[in-house]
Amino acid sequence: MLGERIKVLLDTTRRLSRRGASQALTKILNKTHTADIALLFRFYDSRERRRIFSLFTDLERKAEVVAEMDTSIAVELLSGMTPDQAAAILQELEYDDSTDIVASMPETLAAEILARMESAESEQVEALMGFHEDTAGGLMSTHYFALDKETTAGEAIAALQTDEDFDAFYVYVINEYGHLVGVLSLRQLVRTPPSRQLKEIMIPDVISVTPGAAQDEVARIVERYNFLALPVVDESNKLLGLITVDDVIDVITEEATRDVLKMAGAGEELPEATTTLRENLATRFPWLLMTCIGGLLAAVLIHQYLDKRSFLGFVLSFCPLLLGMARNIGNQSATLVARGLDTGQFHISHIGQILMRELAVGCASGVVYGAAIGGVAAALYHTWGYSLALSSAVVASMIVAVLIGTTAPFAFAKLGGDPTQARTPLTMTAMDIVSVVLFLALAKTLAA
Amino acid sequence: MLGERIKVLLDTTRRLSRRGASQALTKILNKTHTADIALLFRFYDSRERRRIFSLFTDLERKAEVVAEMDTSIAVELLSGMTPDQAAAILQELEYDDSTDIVASMPETLAAEILARMESAESEQVEALMGFHEDTAGGLMSTHYFALDKETTAGEAIAALQTDEDFDAFYVYVINEYGHLVGVLSLRQLVRTPPSRQLKEIMIPDVISVTPGAAQDEVARIVERYNFLALPVVDESNKLLGLITVDDVIDVITEEATRDVLKMAGAGEELPEATTTLRENLATRFPWLLMTCIGGLLAAVLIHQYLDKRSFLGFVLSFCPLLLGMARNIGNQSATLVARGLDTGQFHISHIGQILMRELAVGCASGVVYGAAIGGVAAALYHTWGYSLALSSAVVASMIVAVLIGTTAPFAFAKLGGDPTQARTPLTMTAMDIVSVVLFLALAKTLAA
Repeated sequence: MLGERIKVLLDTTRRLSRRGASQALTKILNKTHTADIALLFRFYDSRERRRIFSLFTDLERKAEVVAEMDTSIAVELLSGMTPDQAAAILQELEYDDSTDIVASMPETLAAEILARMESAESEQVEALMGFHEDTAGGLMSTHYFALDKETTAGEAIAALQTDEDFDAFYVYVINEYGHLVGVLSLRQLVRTPPSRQLKEIMIPDVISVTPGAAQDEVARIVERYNFLALPVVDESNKLLGLITVDDVIDVITEEATRDVLKMAGAGEELPEATTTLRENLATRFPWLLMTCIGGLLAAVLIHQYLDKRSFLGFVLSFCPLLLGMARNIGNQSATLVARGLDTGQFHISHIGQILMRELAVGCASGVVYGAAIGGVAAALYHTWGYSLALSSAVVASMIVAVLIGTTAPFAFAKLGGDPTQARTPLTMTAMDIVSVVLFLALAKTLAA
Repeated sequence: MLGERIKVLLDTTRRLSRRGASQALTKILNKTHTADIALLFRFYDSRERRRIFSLFTDLERKAEVVAEMDTSIAVELLSGMTPDQAAAILQELEYDDSTDIVASMPETLAAEILARMESAESEQVEALMGFHEDTAGGLMSTHYFALDKETTAGEAIAALQTDEDFDAFYVYVINEYGHLVGVLSLRQLVRTPPSRQLKEIMIPDVISVTPGAAQDEVARIVERYNFLALPVVDESNKLLGLITVDDVIDVITEEATRDVLKMAGAGEELPEATTTLRENLATRFPWLLMTCIGGLLAAVLIHQYLDKRSFLGFVLSFCPLLLGMARNIGNQSATLVARGLDTGQFHISHIGQILMRELAVGCASGVVYGAAIGGVAAALYHTWGYSLALSSAVVASMIVAVLIGTTAPFAFAKLGGDPTQARTPLTMTAMDIVSVVLFLALAKTLAA
C-alpha cells in the first residue's frame, strides 16, 4: 500500500525530471512528506538526485530532506556542492544528524565544510564527532529543553512558548551546576498551578546514560521503560544531550539487520550502491574462510576412515567442504537480498544491479577459494585430476549458489510473498544437488 | 550494567521471599520500576510469582505490573486468582493490554472473567478481541484524547487539565460525526493564543491506518514519519483508537525476532516455559521435513552417478541429507537460544531448563526422521545394514547437533561475547564432522 504510493511518486517525479518540467515537479515535491522524499532519493541515480534536490529553494526544507536521507546519499549530494552551500545546509540540521554526515565525508572535505560553518555550530559537530556512532554520544542531540529547578510552572510554559525550536515532550530540570536533577512531561507541566516550582512537581529519579553507553543498551532501556527520550549525562551527572525515540527505533531496526546479517556472516549492514567489490569481499571473507578451514579439517578427518586413493572416498571427504562453501556464500546473498527487500532498502527494480554485484562477489570468492582448496587437496593427496575437479566444482557451485541465493528472494517478493521465505531448506538443497552433481561430473571428466 | 542491577534485585527479592520477609520485600518492590518488576517475574517460578504479586496491595499498581508482564505470565497469574480478583485487576488496564491477556486465556475462564467486569469495560475488550493481535486493531488502545474542531485552544487545555487519564502527546481533532479531521501536538496547543479554534491550528492531513492493517505496516509508517502515535480509523474515517510508539517498538522487536527465527525455520516467536514439547515439535517440523524431502531428492539424484551397491556411493549420496538434518536442527536450537539471550528473554541461568527442552525436541525429531530416512533408504536400495547405519547416524547426529547448538550460545554469553556469534561456520563444521564420522563408523560396524 505504502509501496504503491511511493512507486507512483517515483515514476511521476522521474518522468517530470526527464522532461525538465521543473514547475510541475516542484509542486509535487512541495506536497510530499519529507520522509517520502528521502525515500525517493534512495531510488534516484546521482544525476536525478542533483537535479531534483536543486528544485528545493528553501534552505530549511533542504536541511529537512538531507536529515531524513541515508547518510551515504547525503554525503554524495553535499560533496557535489560548493563547501559554502554544503555548510549552509548542514548548519540547519540537528547536531547529531550533521555530525553523522560530516563524519562520513573524506577528511579534507569535512575540514573545508567545518571551516565554513559558524564556529558555534562547527564546535558542536566536532565535539560530537568524538563519540563513536554506535554509542549514546553518537546518537544524542544536543538540543534539549532544560530549566533550573527553581523555575515556576508558569515561567516554564512562558519559556517554551517563546523557544522557537522547542520540539520535545519532556522538560528536564537542572540545578545551578547543570546537573540533571529531575524530569517532567509537558502534560504534567500544563496541569500544574503556575506558581509551583519545577522541583516540587518533577520526577527526581531520572534514568539516564553516559555518552559511552552502547546503542543497544540505549534501545533496551527505552524499550523497557517506554520512554520517548533518554537524557545523556557525563560522569558528574551534567546534562549533555538527549536521545529521542525515533532515533532509538532506527537503532532497533539497525540492530535487527545486524543480527540477521551476522547469522549468515554477511557483515553488519546492507551494502549500498557506493560499496566497492573489495569492501563486499572483505565483509564476507571471514565467514567463508572459517567454512573453508572447517571443511578442510572435516576432509582430513573423514579421509582417515576411507581408502586413500579411491575416487568416492575423495569426493566424500570433501563433500562437507564443498557443500559448506556453496551454502554459505549462497546464504549470504539470500540473507542480504531478503533483508534489503524486507526493510525496503532494496526494491525489486534493483535486481539487475544487485545480481551483478553478488555475481562479482561469487566469482571472485569462487576463484580464490577454488584455487586454495584445490591446491590444498592436491598437496595433501597428490590426486591431481580429482583436485582439479574439486577446484572447478568449488568455483562453479559458489557462483551457482550466489545466483540461486540472489534471485530466489526477488522471485518470492515478485510473487507477493515474503522474501525471507526464499531461504528455505529447499533452496539450500538445490545448492547441494548442484554442488555434488557438478563435482561428480567434473571429476569423471577431468580424472578420466 | 542493566543486567547486573536486575540480577541483584532478583537475588535479593528471592532471598527475602524465601525467608518470608514480606515487609522488607514490599519496601523494595515499592521502590522498583514497574518495568523491572515485570522483568523479574520472567525469572521467578510460579510459586514466587504468586507470593510476590500478593504483596502488592494497591489495585492500580497490580494492574501496572500485569500490563508490563509477558502475556503468558499474566495469564498464569490471573488464572490462579478468583475470577472476581482477576476481573478487578483487568478492569484497571488499558483495553489493548487487557484484551491481549483475555484473548490468551482458556475460553471458559475468559468468559467467566468478562462476566465479572463492568459491562462497559467487557464490551470494549470483546470488541477488541475481534481484531487479530498482529493487526492495527489488535495493537490499538481505545484511549485517546479527541476534541471537536470548533473547540478553542483555551478550552482544550482546560479539558486536558481535568482529564485524569490524559497521557498522550497529540490531541486529535474530530468533526461532529466523530471523523478524524486533524491533529496537533500538545506543544502546538500550549503555544497558541487561547481563543483560536483547533481547526485553525491543526494539521489537517493526518496519516492513519485501518484496524486491519498489518503490524509491520504500522511499524514501517511510525518508523518512517517519526510519529509518537498513529491513529486508527474505520473506513468512514471515524476515529477508533490509537497506537503508541512504545507498542510499535515492541512490534519492531517482535518482527526482528520473527525474521531471525524464520531464517532458521524455528517458528515465529521464542518458546516460553509453558510451551509444550508437542508445540515445539510442530514449530520445527516443516523446516526439517523440507530438509528431509530435499535431502532424499538429492540422494536419489546423486545415486544416479554412482555404483548402486557401493558402500561409499551410498554414504555419499545420503551425505547432503545427513548433514542437512543435523545442521538444520542444530541451527534452530542455536538461533532460538542466541535470540533469547540477545533480547533478554532467556538468561544464562536458564541453561538447564532450555537444554532439556531442546534435547527433548532433538530426540523426538531424531527418532522420527531417523526411522523415516532409514526406511526410505532401505526401500529404495535394499541395503539393510547401510540403511540401519544411516538411520542411527541421523538420530545420533541430530541429538549431538542440538547439544552443540544449544550450549554454544550459552558458552559465548558466559564468556562475555555475543551469543549470536556462536552460530559460526565452525560450529556448523563441528556438526558436519560429527555427522559424517558417526555415519561411517556406524556403517562399518553395522554393515560388517
